[in-house]
Amino acid sequence: MTSDTGSLICPLDFRYGRAPVRDLFSREARLGRALAVEAALASVQAELGIVPKDDAAAIDAAATTTRVTVERVEEIERSTRHDVMAITRALAEAAGPAGRWVHYGATSADITETAQALEFQAVVAVLRDDLTDLARVLVDLARKHRSTAEVGRTHGQHGVPTTFGYKVAGMAAEVVRHRTRLSELTPRLLVGKMAGAVGTGAGFGLHARTLEEKVMARLHLRPDEAPSQLVGRDRLAEFANFLALVAATAERLSTEVRNLQRTELSEVAEPFDEERQVGSSTMAQKRNPIVSENVTSLARLVRAFALPPLENMVQWHERDLANSANERIVIPHAVVLTDDLLTKLREVFAGLRVDASRMTEELARTGGAAMTENLMLVLTSRGLARGEAHELLRTLSRGGGGEAVLAERARADPRVTRLIPPDEVDALLDPRSYVAAAAAKTDHVLAALDRALRP
Amino acid sequence: MTSDTGSLICPLDFRYGRAPVRDLFSREARLGRALAVEAALASVQAELGIVPKDDAAAIDAAATTTRVTVERVEEIERSTRHDVMAITRALAEAAGPAGRWVHYGATSADITETAQALEFQAVVAVLRDDLTDLARVLVDLARKHRSTAEVGRTHGQHGVPTTFGYKVAGMAAEVVRHRTRLSELTPRLLVGKMAGAVGTGAGFGLHARTLEEKVMARLHLRPDEAPSQLVGRDRLAEFANFLALVAATAERLSTEVRNLQRTELSEVAEPFDEERQVGSSTMAQKRNPIVSENVTSLARLVRAFALPPLENMVQWHERDLANSANERIVIPHAVVLTDDLLTKLREVFAGLRVDASRMTEELARTGGAAMTENLMLVLTSRGLARGEAHELLRTLSRGGGGEAVLAERARADPRVTRLIPPDEVDALLDPRSYVAAAAAKTDHVLAALDRALRP
Amino acid sequence: MTSDTGSLICPLDFRYGRAPVRDLFSREARLGRALAVEAALASVQAELGIVPKDDAAAIDAAATTTRVTVERVEEIERSTRHDVMAITRALAEAAGPAGRWVHYGATSADITETAQALEFQAVVAVLRDDLTDLARVLVDLARKHRSTAEVGRTHGQHGVPTTFGYKVAGMAAEVVRHRTRLSELTPRLLVGKMAGAVGTGAGFGLHARTLEEKVMARLHLRPDEAPSQLVGRDRLAEFANFLALVAATAERLSTEVRNLQRTELSEVAEPFDEERQVGSSTMAQKRNPIVSENVTSLARLVRAFALPPLENMVQWHERDLANSANERIVIPHAVVLTDDLLTKLREVFAGLRVDASRMTEELARTGGAAMTENLMLVLTSRGLARGEAHELLRTLSRGGGGEAVLAERARADPRVTRLIPPDEVDALLDPRSYVAAAAAKTDHVLAALDRALRP
Amino acid sequence: MTSDTGSLICPLDFRYGRAPVRDLFSREARLGRALAVEAALASVQAELGIVPKDDAAAIDAAATTTRVTVERVEEIERSTRHDVMAITRALAEAAGPAGRWVHYGATSADITETAQALEFQAVVAVLRDDLTDLARVLVDLARKHRSTAEVGRTHGQHGVPTTFGYKVAGMAAEVVRHRTRLSELTPRLLVGKMAGAVGTGAGFGLHARTLEEKVMARLHLRPDEAPSQLVGRDRLAEFANFLALVAATAERLSTEVRNLQRTELSEVAEPFDEERQVGSSTMAQKRNPIVSENVTSLARLVRAFALPPLENMVQWHERDLANSANERIVIPHAVVLTDDLLTKLREVFAGLRVDASRMTEELARTGGAAMTENLMLVLTSRGLARGEAHELLRTLSRGGGGEAVLAERARADPRVTRLIPPDEVDALLDPRSYVAAAAAKTDHVLAALDRALRP
Repeated sequence: MTSDTGSLICPLDFRYGRAPVRDLFSREARLGRALAVEAALASVQAELGIVPKDDAAAIDAAATTTRVTVERVEEIERSTRHDVMAITRALAEAAGPAGRWVHYGATSADITETAQALEFQAVVAVLRDDLTDLARVLVDLARKHRSTAEVGRTHGQHGVPTTFGYKVAGMAAEVVRHRTRLSELTPRLLVGKMAGAVGTGAGFGLHARTLEEKVMARLHLRPDEAPSQLVGRDRLAEFANFLALVAATAERLSTEVRNLQRTELSEVAEPFDEERQVGSSTMAQKRNPIVSENVTSLARLVRAFALPPLENMVQWHERDLANSANERIVIPHAVVLTDDLLTKLREVFAGLRVDASRMTEELARTGGAAMTENLMLVLTSRGLARGEAHELLRTLSRGGGGEAVLAERARADPRVTRLIPPDEVDALLDPRSYVAAAAAKTDHVLAALDRALRP
Repeated sequence: MTSDTGSLICPLDFRYGRAPVRDLFSREARLGRALAVEAALASVQAELGIVPKDDAAAIDAAATTTRVTVERVEEIERSTRHDVMAITRALAEAAGPAGRWVHYGATSADITETAQALEFQAVVAVLRDDLTDLARVLVDLARKHRSTAEVGRTHGQHGVPTTFGYKVAGMAAEVVRHRTRLSELTPRLLVGKMAGAVGTGAGFGLHARTLEEKVMARLHLRPDEAPSQLVGRDRLAEFANFLALVAATAERLSTEVRNLQRTELSEVAEPFDEERQVGSSTMAQKRNPIVSENVTSLARLVRAFALPPLENMVQWHERDLANSANERIVIPHAVVLTDDLLTKLREVFAGLRVDASRMTEELARTGGAAMTENLMLVLTSRGLARGEAHELLRTLSRGGGGEAVLAERARADPRVTRLIPPDEVDALLDPRSYVAAAAAKTDHVLAALDRALRP
Repeated sequence: MTSDTGSLICPLDFRYGRAPVRDLFSREARLGRALAVEAALASVQAELGIVPKDDAAAIDAAATTTRVTVERVEEIERSTRHDVMAITRALAEAAGPAGRWVHYGATSADITETAQALEFQAVVAVLRDDLTDLARVLVDLARKHRSTAEVGRTHGQHGVPTTFGYKVAGMAAEVVRHRTRLSELTPRLLVGKMAGAVGTGAGFGLHARTLEEKVMARLHLRPDEAPSQLVGRDRLAEFANFLALVAATAERLSTEVRNLQRTELSEVAEPFDEERQVGSSTMAQKRNPIVSENVTSLARLVRAFALPPLENMVQWHERDLANSANERIVIPHAVVLTDDLLTKLREVFAGLRVDASRMTEELARTGGAAMTENLMLVLTSRGLARGEAHELLRTLSRGGGGEAVLAERARADPRVTRLIPPDEVDALLDPRSYVAAAAAKTDHVLAALDRALRP
Repeated sequence: MTSDTGSLICPLDFRYGRAPVRDLFSREARLGRALAVEAALASVQAELGIVPKDDAAAIDAAATTTRVTVERVEEIERSTRHDVMAITRALAEAAGPAGRWVHYGATSADITETAQALEFQAVVAVLRDDLTDLARVLVDLARKHRSTAEVGRTHGQHGVPTTFGYKVAGMAAEVVRHRTRLSELTPRLLVGKMAGAVGTGAGFGLHARTLEEKVMARLHLRPDEAPSQLVGRDRLAEFANFLALVAATAERLSTEVRNLQRTELSEVAEPFDEERQVGSSTMAQKRNPIVSENVTSLARLVRAFALPPLENMVQWHERDLANSANERIVIPHAVVLTDDLLTKLREVFAGLRVDASRMTEELARTGGAAMTENLMLVLTSRGLARGEAHELLRTLSRGGGGEAVLAERARADPRVTRLIPPDEVDALLDPRSYVAAAAAKTDHVLAALDRALRP
C-alpha cells in the first residue's frame, strides 16, 4: 500500500533492526513459509496415496513466491478478507489443474500455525547465535580484566574491592543461562499441526496421525500433542517471556555501562567515533552513552510485549481469533528488537574503553574503608564479639572527617591494637588480597563458561 | 532503506490503521513539525530583536518539507548520528546566510519536545472525534432498542430482564466518560518547552521566559512550568494510560458482541458481506465475529504499550535518553491502533444486526425464573422473613426438572399462595414491568448523554 | 503489630490460600531458614578448622525458632533497622560465648539469599505436586469422556464435532508442559551463595570456594556460579514468569468452565453444594460458577506479579536494594495464589458435572452444518475445484432459513448430487466418524501423558 | 483464622503501611461501610413510605459493628459462602422483627459497590493530604536551595549549570499535577448504585430513581449513570492507573536521591540515625539510602497493580465475578503502599542533607566546559556559522587533556579570539549567570505552586 519510505511509521521499517532478521518477517518470507507447508502437505498426501503424485509435484513446483506472488495474494485477500484462503487460491491458480488438491483436508490454522513454527526455527537460530556471540565477547573482556581492581558498589556506595573482570564474568554467566533456557524451550516452540479444524485430525480420515507426523518430519518440526484449532498458546507466551527475560538482562548490562560512564566515575566508555559523531547539539564536549541508552529504552518495550501473549492463552473453546492481530505485531517486533539489543550490546562490549587507572583512583577514594570488613573479621577471630567489632568500626568510620581517616584511627585505637598490631592493620586494609580472590574466582567462572560455550 | 512493500514487517505500515492517522506519524510529518518549531523560534527572536527580521523571514520560508527534505536530513544524520542536528543543518543550508540563526540558543530537546506537543495536538483532535462518533452511534442504537427486551446475564447465567438499549446506553456512557478524561488531560499534554539544556532558559538570556511564552502561544501550546531538558514524562505516561483505558473499553464492547454472537445466543451479529466474505476455509457455514475479535486482540496490545511510558518517567537527573527509542515506537503504534479500534467499533455498532426475536426466545427460556426476585420481594413485603423467602424460592427453583417449572410450582405451593394468589404469581413473573423500567432508565441516560455530546 | 484478625487487610492472611503453603512464608518459617543457613555455615567452618567444633555445635543447637524467637529478633530490629543483623545478634545471644563465631565472614545477603533458596525448595515441591495432581484429575476426566461428543467451537461459532475428552486432554497436556518447565528451571532457582559482600568470596580467604560448596551441599542447594552481592535476579524473574504462565493456563481452564456453564450451553457445571450454598441474594435460581470466576480473577493478579521481578533484574553495580521490598510481597503472594488456583481447579474438575445429553443437543442444533467440511472434501476429491466447492456450500448454508436446512438443500442440489448421491450426503453429514477420530486421538494423547506422569 | 502475628505472610499486615490507612481496609471497617449502606437504604425507604419508619430506625440502630460483629458475619458466611448474604442475615438478626426489611429490593452489588465508593471517599482524602504535604515539603526545599548551584546532568554526563532548588521545583510541580489529576477523577470514582440486579432499578419499582438519588445523597456520593450489576469498572481502572502514575513519580524522586547520594557524588543524603542505624552487616562505614531504595522497590509493585483492574473492565454481559477476588487484594495493597511511598518521600525530603559544597566541587570539575554552550552562542551571534562553531568547540574540548583545558585552549585559539577577546571568554565560561537564571525561574515556578497549594 505504502511505497515511499517517508510515509512509513514504524521505526522497524526504516530505523531499527538488522536486515537479515527483519527479512525473516517480511510478507514475502511469510508467504514463502505458508507455501512450504502447503507443498509438504501435498507431498505427504501423495506419499500416502491420497493425492496423485503428479499433482503433488505440480503443487510443489508452484509453491514459490516467484510463482505465487505477494501481490496476487493480496489482491485476492482484498475481496475475500481471509488471508489463508487467498494463499490457497493463488497457489491453486499457479498449480493449474492440480490446484484442486491444494490444502486438501486442511484448515487454515494447519497452515498458519505450522508456518509460524518454521518462522520460529529461523528465529531460534538467530537468537542462539546472538547469545553465543555476546557471551564470548563478555568472556574475553572478563578474562582481559580478571585482575583489574575496581571498587564494588552496593546501594550506590563504595564497598569492598572486586575486579572489573569478575563483574563482567557475572554478566557472561547470565547470558549463558539464557542460552540454556532457549535450548530448553525450543522443542516446545517448534511444533506445528496438521490436524484440522478442532485438532482431532478427523478431516484427514484414517491417515490423520501418520500424515501429521510425516508433514512435521519433512519440515523438521514436531506435532503439537493435543492441539485445538491452534497450537497451545502457552508455547508462544513462554517464548515471549523468554525474550522479556533477555531484554531485562540487556537493560541490566546497558545500565551498568551508563552508570560506569557517568562523568564522576568515567571508568568505562562505550565506543565513540571521535571524528564524526555529535554528542550534543549545544554541549559540544559531551560523550553520551547513547547506544547503551538506546538498549535500555528498547528493552522496556520488549518486556511489555510479553503481556499480550499471556492473555492470548485464554482461548475460548477450540479457539477464538483474539490472539491473531496482536501476534502479527508482537512477534516480529519483539524478535527484531531483541536481536537488535543483543547485537548492540555485543558492539558496546567488544569496543568498550576501560579506564583501569580511574578504577584504581576510585578504589583509593575511601582510603581503606572499603576493607573494613576484613578488619572486623580478624577482630572477631581474635576474641571480640561480632556485634562489638561491628560497632567499633562503625564508630571509627563515622563523622565529618571522612572515611579516609579510618586506617589512621584504627592504628591509634587501643581497642584495635590490643588485638592487631598497627602494621598488620595496614596489611589488612590493603585491597590486594581481595583483588587476588576476585581474579581467581573469575578464572574459575570463565573456565566453566568456556566449557558451556564450546561448539 | 526499504522501498518495496513486500519487505515491510510492521502491519501498521501495510495492514492496520487509517491513512490520515498513520500520516500524522510519517517521517515527513515529523520533520514538518520540527521545522515549524524552528521557524516559530526564529520569528519570536526577530520580534524580540535578537535575530534580524529578514533572516527570520528567510528561515520561516525555508522551513518546509519541500525545501528541507526527508532525504537530505537522513543523509546528514547518517554521518552525525544526531537527528535534530541533522535537521538544523539542513534548514541552515536551505536558509542560506540567514542559516546561522537557525536553532539559536535552543537545545535539541526544545525542538523535539515542542514538535511532539504539536503531534499530540493533531492526535487529540482525532481521538476526540473518534470518541464522539462512537458515542453517537451507541446512543442511536440504544434509543432504537430502548425497549427491546433481553435477559440480563450475570456470571454467565440468566438473571432478571433488561433491554438491549439499556445495555448499549451503558456502553455509550463509558465512552462519554473517556471523552471527559481526554478533555481533562489535554492541557497537561499540549505543553512544549523552549528552555535550553536543563530547562532553566539560561541560554536565552534575559528574554528567556517571554521568548518561551511567545513561541508556545504561536504554536497554540503552553510551556511546561518547570521542565528539565525534557517536558515531564508524567504527561506522556498519563496519555498512554488513557489509551489503555480506552482500549480496555474497546475490549469490553467487542467481547460483548462476540458473546452475543455465539451460535447459542445469536442475539446480534456484526456486519458481514454475504456476497464475498469467507468465514472459514473449511466450515463454509460460519459467520465469525472477526472484526470484534480483531478489536479484542489489538486492545491487548494497546494496553501493553502503557508500560514503557511509566518506566520512562524515571529519568536520571536532568534527563537520560532511555525514554527516546521506545517512545518512537510506542506513541505512533498506540495512537494508530486506538484510532483503529474506535473506528472498527463504530462500524460494528453502526451496522450491528440485532435479532430481537432471539432475545425474546432467550428471555422465555427460563420460564419466569428470571423474575424470581420479584416474587421474593413481594413475599417479604407481606411478612415472610427475607431469608426464608430466599430459601423457599431457591428450593422451588432447584432440581432436575429445570427452571421452567418454577412458576408452576410457585402457584401450587401453599407457602407462596397463602401470601400471593396464583394469578398474581403469574403477573409478578411477567417480565414486562422490568422491561418498562429499563426503557425508562434508558431514556433518562440518553437524555444526559445527548447533552454531553451536544457540540 | 496487629494481633486481632479483624484488623488484617491482606486476604491471604484470612481468606485465600491453603494453610500449609501460607505457613512456608510465615515470619517464623523465614526465621527458621535463616537460622539453618547460619548453622550450616558454622558447621562447615568447624569442618574446615576455622571455627572451634564446640562453638559450631553450640550455634547449631541454638539455631531454632524456639531459642531464637521471632519476638526477640523483631525487638532487636526495631533499634537496628537491619533484619539480618537482628537475627545474627539474637542467635549470638542464644549461643552464648560461641556467639562471636556467628555469621563469621559472611555478609547479610549470604544468609538471606541462601535462605530464599531454601524457601524455593519447599515451594517447588508444592507446585510440582499441584501440577501433577491437577494433571491426573484432567487425565481421568478426559479418559471418562473420550467419546462424549461435543460440538467444537471456534470464534464462538459451532464448528466440526470433537469430544469433551479430547478438549480436556488438551488441558492436561498443557499442565504437563508446565511440569516440565518447572523441572527445567528448578536447578537455576535452587542456588544460594556464601561469597561475601560482592560475591568474590574474598572475606572467607583461601577456603572460600570449598566452604561455599560444602555449605550448599549441606543444604541440598548449588552455589550461584558468579554472584554479586546477590544471586542473579534472572532466576527469580524466570520463576515469576513461570507462575504467570501457569496462571494464564488457570485462567484458560476456568474460563472454559465458565463458558460451558452459561445458561445457554449448560454443558458442564462446577461442583455446587445444593443444600447450603447461595447463588445470588436476589436471584435464588442461579448456579454461578463462582470458583471458576475466582480462579480467573486471581490468575490476573498472579500474572501482574511477574512484572516487578523483571525490573528487579536491573541491579546497579554489585547490588542495589530496589528488589528487596517488593520481593517480600511478590513471592509469597504469587506462590500462595498459584497454589490456590491449582487446588481450586483440581476440585472443580474432580467434581465437574458433565451433561453429555446437553452436548448432544448442541451438536444437533446446526443439523449437520457442522459437517459441511466433510462434504466439501469429498466434492473436491471427486473433481470440483476447491474454491467452487467452498463457494457452493457457503451459498447453501446461507440465509434466513437457518443452517438446519443445509442437508436438505444439499440432497436436492444437482451440483452436489451429480458427484454425491443423496444418501451418501446423509452419511457424510453424520458426525459419528469425527467423534471416533477424536476418541482415538484422545487415547493416543492420554497414553503419552500417563507415561509423563508415571512417578 | 490466624491470630498470632508470627504466622502472617503479608508484610502489609506487620511491616509496611501506616496504621490509619491500613485500618481503612480492615474487615471491620469494610463491614461498617456495608452496614452504613444498608442503613441508608432502609432510611430512604422509610422516607418514601416503603418501609415502616420504626423498622428503618431499628435497622439503622443495629447497623454497627458492635451489634453486627465480624465474627458473626464470618460464621454465617462459612455456611452460605456468600458474603453480602451473610451481612444481611446478621443485620436482620440484630434488627429483630424489623429485620425482614433489611436489604429490601436490593441486590448484593448495590451494597458492595456503594460501600466500595465510601471506602474511596476516605482513600481520596488521605491521598490528597499526602500529595499536598509532599508538595509543600518540596516547595520549601526548593525555595531554600533556589540558588544552590549544581551541575545539570544529562545522559549521566555533566552539562550546563542549574540549581538544586530548580530541580526540586520540578519535582514539586509534578506532585501538584497529580493533585489536579486526583481532583478530576474523584467525581468519577465516588459513585455508587442502588439499582438492582442489572442496574435498571426495576426491583425498586416506580421509586427507583428517586430512591437511588436519595441514598447516594445521604452518603455524599453520586449514582453511576448507567450501571449494570456493577458500577463501571473503568472508574477503578482509572484510579489504579493514577496510583501507578504517582508511584512512577515516587520512583523518579527516590532514584534521584539514590543517584545524588552515590559515594562519587555525595551531594545529598537521606536522613540517617547515626547513633543506632546499621548500614551494612559487614561494611560498617556505609550510609545506604535504604528508605529511597525501599520507595523505588514498592513503586514497582504499585505500578504492577494497575494491570488487573484494566482486565477487569471486560465484564461479560451484565457482570461476571472475575473482578472481585483480585480487587480484594489490589485495592488495599495499592492504596496502602502508595500512601506509604508518599509518606516516606516526605520524610526523606523533609530531612534531606544537602551538601552545597560538594555540588560546587562537582560543578568545577569540568572547568568551564559545562558552559561551552554559552561560548558557542556568542560565536554564532558574531558571525560564525552554527555548525562551524559547534565543530570548533567539539574539537577544542576533545582529547586526552581532559575538558578542564577548554578555557585555556579557547583563549589561545585565533578562531575564537578574533570574535571574542580572552577575558570575555572567561566571563562567558563563568557559570554564575546560569545559576541566576535558574534561581529566577525557580522563584517563578514556586509562586505558581504556592497559589495551587493554597487551601
